[in-house]
Amino acid sequence: MRTVDLIQRKRDGEALTDQELRSLCNGAADGTIPDYQVTAFLMATYLKGMTDEETALLTMAMAESGEQIDLSSLPGVKVDKHSTGGVGDTTTLVLAPLAAACGATVAKMSGRGLGHTGGTLDKMESIPGLTTKQTREQFLDQVRKIGVAVISQTPTLVPADSKFYGLRDVTATVDSIPLIASSVMSKKIASGAQVIVLDVKTGRGAFMKTLEDSRKLARSMVDIGRRLGRQMTAVITDMDVPLGNYIGNALEVREAIEILAGKHAGTPLWEVSLTLCGHMLSLADLAIDPTDGRAKAEEALRNGAGLRKLREMIEAQGGDGRVVEDLSLLPEAGQTDDLSADRDGWIASIDALAVGEAAMRLGAGRAKKDDVIDPSVGVVLKVRAGQKVSRGEVIATMHVNEPNRLPDARERLANAFKWSDSVVHPHALIREVVS
Amino acid sequence: MRTVDLIQRKRDGEALTDQELRSLCNGAADGTIPDYQVTAFLMATYLKGMTDEETALLTMAMAESGEQIDLSSLPGVKVDKHSTGGVGDTTTLVLAPLAAACGATVAKMSGRGLGHTGGTLDKMESIPGLTTKQTREQFLDQVRKIGVAVISQTPTLVPADSKFYGLRDVTATVDSIPLIASSVMSKKIASGAQVIVLDVKTGRGAFMKTLEDSRKLARSMVDIGRRLGRQMTAVITDMDVPLGNYIGNALEVREAIEILAGKHAGTPLWEVSLTLCGHMLSLADLAIDPTDGRAKAEEALRNGAGLRKLREMIEAQGGDGRVVEDLSLLPEAGQTDDLSADRDGWIASIDALAVGEAAMRLGAGRAKKDDVIDPSVGVVLKVRAGQKVSRGEVIATMHVNEPNRLPDARERLANAFKWSDSVVHPHALIREVVS
Repeated sequence: MRTVDLIQRKRDGEALTDQELRSLCNGAADGTIPDYQVTAFLMATYLKGMTDEETALLTMAMAESGEQIDLSSLPGVKVDKHSTGGVGDTTTLVLAPLAAACGATVAKMSGRGLGHTGGTLDKMESIPGLTTKQTREQFLDQVRKIGVAVISQTPTLVPADSKFYGLRDVTATVDSIPLIASSVMSKKIASGAQVIVLDVKTGRGAFMKTLEDSRKLARSMVDIGRRLGRQMTAVITDMDVPLGNYIGNALEVREAIEILAGKHAGTPLWEVSLTLCGHMLSLADLAIDPTDGRAKAEEALRNGAGLRKLREMIEAQGGDGRVVEDLSLLPEAGQTDDLSADRDGWIASIDALAVGEAAMRLGAGRAKKDDVIDPSVGVVLKVRAGQKVSRGEVIATMHVNEPNRLPDARERLANAFKWSDSVVHPHALIREVVS
Repeated sequence: MRTVDLIQRKRDGEALTDQELRSLCNGAADGTIPDYQVTAFLMATYLKGMTDEETALLTMAMAESGEQIDLSSLPGVKVDKHSTGGVGDTTTLVLAPLAAACGATVAKMSGRGLGHTGGTLDKMESIPGLTTKQTREQFLDQVRKIGVAVISQTPTLVPADSKFYGLRDVTATVDSIPLIASSVMSKKIASGAQVIVLDVKTGRGAFMKTLEDSRKLARSMVDIGRRLGRQMTAVITDMDVPLGNYIGNALEVREAIEILAGKHAGTPLWEVSLTLCGHMLSLADLAIDPTDGRAKAEEALRNGAGLRKLREMIEAQGGDGRVVEDLSLLPEAGQTDDLSADRDGWIASIDALAVGEAAMRLGAGRAKKDDVIDPSVGVVLKVRAGQKVSRGEVIATMHVNEPNRLPDARERLANAFKWSDSVVHPHALIREVVS
């Protein structure tokens, strides 16, 4: 079939067939379809959309454009989780060991995108000695032994997505539900999990700014997974404000360890991690329902099983496991700088995007693919939205290595805080569950 | 400005500014904007359209992406004509010398596209010795001396269009009014004419199949030209059936010469050539109105001035001018093969597309850029739509060099004839004038 005919059909709003979508994905992946045809197809898809069935077929075609991970040799129900990304979101480091401690099999691959802080891989790599690069055999072996591994995705996984993703960024075809949903889900499908829990962020610091768009994306991804035989739940969670109080790489590892050690109970990061883990355990038939799953996860947190599992995982991946007892082993920035309230009042909101940009300015993130991340820098929030604060009180602390980065970061961080003269009720944290 | 932002604005249906369109055209022309961004822009334009003003700005930006021909040193009003292309359409070879004979200045550049027969350049090159390649100085010099030249467009003319044109073909973005109109008009604007007459074909053998689409395209092109200060008229003419009775390269030269020699009066090619020439002369203020212009053109035909001018042009371009008196100097095919009517009846229609394909099969056209055209082959129609024919009467003759090409061509040609058992009234030839 001629690629131009497929582009034409999509241009005219027709649904492409399985065979046609495979031809496109394989051609994009192996380079036999030139980029200029791929982008015409992406723009036509952006503007004309896809049916639910078509999006699922596209996802499968993308997943099968490269290597697929066969987890069938592993015991237990293989679970995975994906977050659409936000600021201070280190749920993976909390819930992966927790879910494994509760009997789920967590063989997780992660990508390394651009962002205000690094991704899960960058955060993990701030732990001395830890590596996220493994051979397929090492990966499966580790999961078989301890029930959990989080490693970096290889370039052979979903090459069609790599191609699409790179081109979408420069052709204004990023924020399309079928393209986002198929991108996320193709990687999850190719990674081999049976149970997939999605954390779809909504709000200022999220990719999807409105609840309506977040809901559409969540529904699309759940629908795709179902059609492809996966157990699916999506939880829509707030990202108007940062999820965790620590924003940075080593800083977020610290917060995850502290949560697994029993601290920060009731905070948003704690709450979302337990909720997602509850859904995971329930879908994996390790709990009666999500509430029961969440109770199990909380118990594993309380009795230290989660923290022990994190230590096992760190050590299995070459890291210094003592870090879970001695946080001073994590890299620390050369200096800290406090931001104090310049007024009395209630914190109406803390703009997640602005906090992320402040962390980025300090060196915590990556604007271009080759940027080097500073693992030790970042921001620690001392207050939450809704809280009453007095003038002079420290509301955030910046962890800094290069003082010349401070003024810009400080200004952005200060502007992140929105104030109110009266009581404020922040958005609910868990907005909706799509299942 | 970032190209991705321009693509996004077009994707969202916004009108781009002059500066933005120039940035796109110059970047496409010089290769600093990669093809994959150009095609995303083209697809967004295809699906979201352009305002009239925007289309005119795009046209100007395309025209100014490369060299522009300055005709100001030439005397008289510089006139040009463009046809959207059809089968048996050799009006240029009739009207260019006629218009020049009537006092207009015809400095015409032509492209060399794909098609069932060659373009004007290919037809001209079937004349022994004639070349269509000239330096800028030779070109202007010839027009200064004899008032007419038809040469091949250089690659430095409208490079943005060359880029767009090549990419549109493989990304299903060809049939978009703003893209077609800007492509045609940018070349006309860059070629420097003050008066532009457009022959917009409509029907089965045309690019625009319906009168409505043809009208839209005609209006868009006239609007662009007006906005850019040109004198414009578009004539919408029928292309359900071939315009001329000769379809091929040397064959069409023959028909043009015969018309200028006073033959074929009243045939569609004669009629359209005189009509277009009339509009040209009128816009150039060489006639009171199109009717008067047409009368002037007819007089130049009758008194032989047109044929003499054609001879001058052929000789100025290195060709053997005696051809206008001795048609046997044109290349002739090795054999001819008649197609006879297999029934009595009226010719309801002669499918222009099918006749074109038959000529193509005989070797008259170019399917790929590097195909070599056989100047001598083609089809001569012996009947017209509406005519009553008896069984056994010859309705067409094929001129052939490679007999193995004959069966396929013959079948296609036979299928081109649609029959009726009763009187048929063909479409009007001149459908509308847009001015």
